[in-house]
Amino acid sequence: MAPLITLTTDFGLTAPYVAAMKGALLAVCPAARIVDLSHQIRPQEVRHAAYFLAVALPTFPPDAIHVVVVDPGVGTDRAALLVDSPTCRLLAPDNGCWTQVPFPAPPVLRRLAEPRFWRQPVSATFHGRDVFAPTAGHLANGVSPADLGPVVTQWATLPARPPTQRGPGEWVGEVLFVDDFGNVITNLAGNLVRTGSVVHIAGREVDRVVRTYGEAAPGDLVVLVSSCGHAELALVNGDAAAQLQVRVGSEVFLRSP
Amino acid sequence: MAPLITLTTDFGLTAPYVAAMKGALLAVCPAARIVDLSHQIRPQEVRHAAYFLAVALPTFPPDAIHVVVVDPGVGTDRAALLVDSPTCRLLAPDNGCWTQVPFPAPPVLRRLAEPRFWRQPVSATFHGRDVFAPTAGHLANGVSPADLGPVVTQWATLPARPPTQRGPGEWVGEVLFVDDFGNVITNLAGNLVRTGSVVHIAGREVDRVVRTYGEAAPGDLVVLVSSCGHAELALVNGDAAAQLQVRVGSEVFLRSP
Amino acid sequence: MAPLITLTTDFGLTAPYVAAMKGALLAVCPAARIVDLSHQIRPQEVRHAAYFLAVALPTFPPDAIHVVVVDPGVGTDRAALLVDSPTCRLLAPDNGCWTQVPFPAPPVLRRLAEPRFWRQPVSATFHGRDVFAPTAGHLANGVSPADLGPVVTQWATLPARPPTQRGPGEWVGEVLFVDDFGNVITNLAGNLVRTGSVVHIAGREVDRVVRTYGEAAPGDLVVLVSSCGHAELALVNGDAAAQLQVRVGSEVFLRSP
Repeated sequence: MAPLITLTTDFGLTAPYVAAMKGALLAVCPAARIVDLSHQIRPQEVRHAAYFLAVALPTFPPDAIHVVVVDPGVGTDRAALLVDSPTCRLLAPDNGCWTQVPFPAPPVLRRLAEPRFWRQPVSATFHGRDVFAPTAGHLANGVSPADLGPVVTQWATLPARPPTQRGPGEWVGEVLFVDDFGNVITNLAGNLVRTGSVVHIAGREVDRVVRTYGEAAPGDLVVLVSSCGHAELALVNGDAAAQLQVRVGSEVFLRSP
Repeated sequence: MAPLITLTTDFGLTAPYVAAMKGALLAVCPAARIVDLSHQIRPQEVRHAAYFLAVALPTFPPDAIHVVVVDPGVGTDRAALLVDSPTCRLLAPDNGCWTQVPFPAPPVLRRLAEPRFWRQPVSATFHGRDVFAPTAGHLANGVSPADLGPVVTQWATLPARPPTQRGPGEWVGEVLFVDDFGNVITNLAGNLVRTGSVVHIAGREVDRVVRTYGEAAPGDLVVLVSSCGHAELALVNGDAAAQLQVRVGSEVFLRSP
Repeated sequence: MAPLITLTTDFGLTAPYVAAMKGALLAVCPAARIVDLSHQIRPQEVRHAAYFLAVALPTFPPDAIHVVVVDPGVGTDRAALLVDSPTCRLLAPDNGCWTQVPFPAPPVLRRLAEPRFWRQPVSATFHGRDVFAPTAGHLANGVSPADLGPVVTQWATLPARPPTQRGPGEWVGEVLFVDDFGNVITNLAGNLVRTGSVVHIAGREVDRVVRTYGEAAPGDLVVLVSSCGHAELALVNGDAAAQLQVRVGSEVFLRSP
């Protein structure tokens, strides 16, 4: 079966960068099946990539290879990593983007250190094409992870801002992501939401808890458990983020009975 | 040959929803070739999806499986359907999005009713990942349509607003779609357009009938037969919809000799 | 191995045009692996397509077939071309879009002249679906280039505006492309940039020469060699084009020691 390689970048599709990555990958592994996950990660927003990967990657079969290039540090001495686990193999710059993906056991991390697996000459500003894509091709061709570089035991993490408990049934969190519909995904666990829960956000109180959008009327602001397991605010058939004027990082209070 | 599965959604690509659908599909059918049709259907616009599918699907080979998720009713009791015909197999929520696709004979419709073919646990808000994508994978793996659920004989339709005839050679219709160039596609049949035809739209009279954009000069407003067989208004090298200030649903009059 | 066919268009993804091209291609060559390069070429901007292809296509393996449809002249008597070289096969309207792709030796050009390889009926306005996509499918199926049409020895070119030298180490060029990050790519060769180079653009002097974005601080305006080998202006972690208020065609002066 043709090897499966996914691509996630913040490159957009106006520039030839994604196309050049695909060519560089196929030049090494002509049989690869390339699957685009997104090229619309918000530019250089590693946190957006981290949320995206945490939701998307667990759905994939374990032999897929995931290439992730959201890389504000390109050309500095930040490492290029292989994150290797029996459930998921991922190539990415060492910026913490992979650290929210759930792994059943800690993955083995390797620093890509073998220029023979790279496209030459390696540019200073485009490691997606010159390092990550060809390395994914070699990995798909059967090159052993151990050949790509040494194991590392330190890596970049994302500053954690987990929700905090204020009192019995009272939590403070923040907006984690706003999707293209305007649905507001928070970092509060979905299992905190139940009948009688009340959310305070941006000066508004939202006390309509539903299981799904269709239970409320168009225009209603509701609280529900998102498809990825977080507390979510939605405006039925509308754009909750625009109406509430909230964005990633906005504070959210939840009180549940 | 690797099975061919197309995806059409209104999810956009900022959120991880499309990526999660792809993973869920490949987890069931790792050999699938996924072909993106569009993830830019306007949010929750079932009519946009219906026009899109009516134009796109007839070009495909008959063994392709089409997954369509524009689903304002997700989580309500709207059915999830398999539309099964020798020329086209399509999985979609029961909202009428498939009803403008031309079929040589009426397709058989089945209600997806077998949770064993779904991703568990099934969320209330994301049937694209949990119901439609895995079902497409099973269908590609050879599961029989009859195993997916019972035949149904009633389904949602889209309120029809066909063009009406006002007099000999006089028709009233509406704008069906505006493409990314600003070309204005109407619901009037292309064969009504001929030399001498005149269109009235948004207070403007357009009497320049051409076969192709290149016959007129940049800046000319013209009437022609669109590539999908409808009467179309275009501004050569420009944006007709912006200049005319029309949108989907705007009224159009056509008088032909 | 399944044949590899790439698509580059200015169609966007709201309309069903890209989807219809994919269907028409797969109807002819059901085994094809379709790789999207971009459908976000700026509408009818042949120069954008030319830059895009010049950067992207050299990365691909030589047996890929590239379909490029940026076609302001569709329906006029402009030819449809096969550009055939041992390193790259490309199908495109005769508008010069392919002329900046580097070829080791001049490619053979053929005019597509055999309607038996087209989708019937051929529309006046959508040769992507009706001519280019099915022809790519036949080519992938093994049809010989010679069967597609006669060799031609004349073709459209893009008016060249190469950089000019003003004096020793002084060059005048222009902005070639602005990417989605706002990085400004010029038509000045990267090897003209060295320590001590100074760029004048939009009334600003930029004298900070770096090898990579990470060498400067966020907010710094820098000059560097782009990943595709041109002189580039960038605003670290920001949008240089917006800050400089420049666009494609804006003048750039470079003075190097």
